[in-house]
Amino acid sequence: MKVEFLHTMVRVKDLDKSLEFYKMLGLIERKRSDHEGGRFSLVYLCPPEQTDGRADLELTYNWDGDDELPTDGRHFGHLAYRVENIYEMCQQLMDAGVTINRPPRDGHMAFIRSPDNISIELLQMDKPLPAQEPWASMENTGHW
Amino acid sequence: MKVEFLHTMVRVKDLDKSLEFYKMLGLIERKRSDHEGGRFSLVYLCPPEQTDGRADLELTYNWDGDDELPTDGRHFGHLAYRVENIYEMCQQLMDAGVTINRPPRDGHMAFIRSPDNISIELLQMDKPLPAQEPWASMENTGHW
Repeated sequence: MKVEFLHTMVRVKDLDKSLEFYKMLGLIERKRSDHEGGRFSLVYLCPPEQTDGRADLELTYNWDGDDELPTDGRHFGHLAYRVENIYEMCQQLMDAGVTINRPPRDGHMAFIRSPDNISIELLQMDKPLPAQEPWASMENTGHW
Repeated sequence: MKVEFLHTMVRVKDLDKSLEFYKMLGLIERKRSDHEGGRFSLVYLCPPEQTDGRADLELTYNWDGDDELPTDGRHFGHLAYRVENIYEMCQQLMDAGVTINRPPRDGHMAFIRSPDNISIELLQMDKPLPAQEPWASMENTGHW
């Protein structure tokens, strides 16, 4: 039987904060629906070159909050995005106040957290970049 | 900056049980690495027609267990797969002992849980199927 991957859904507490965050990663808003009846919104984000609805991140936002959400979703592993220049991406994120939990010391891999503490892996496209300061000697912060 | 979606990672407590489960959904094992040093395995699963490493489910299995894992990962929303025939898929899953938490009463959507209680959405390809028993009158079980 044919099967296709569509999206990963994560629940968010603050939709504006989350959109701002995911857009910093280069994702675009592909589709959005606001449900008056159920009082929730669904926003589908994707990389600009993967707009076929088979690489989406679906954000579920409950208008009246969602107190059941744990503050740290370790059970869910992470989302992974490959980026063109991991140093530039991490610099942009840091400039915007995002903690680089696992800096790209090796020019290859970094981890950050979304506003809801969803773990996000960043990977360098093609070969790792040459080691470079300030990354090469930057310590880990927290866990991811 | 170019960005590509790669995978969603989830942690699993029993790798064999998980592989058996995800293979029932039609996923295939694309890549696997066993890390003696860190005592963990990574298994990358994907739909047979999405083998480019941009629609993977990465299973992380710690050989010595992972007691920190919550039993119910509500913070993480769900994975979604579109399938060719949602009734046949749900029947196969039921026959294998999987609870259909949200049966496909509408011929369009169902929810199940992985062995680690990761919520998984199944969607019918193309148009919804005509309503059909036993699904049409099947009640929900638990939450998802």
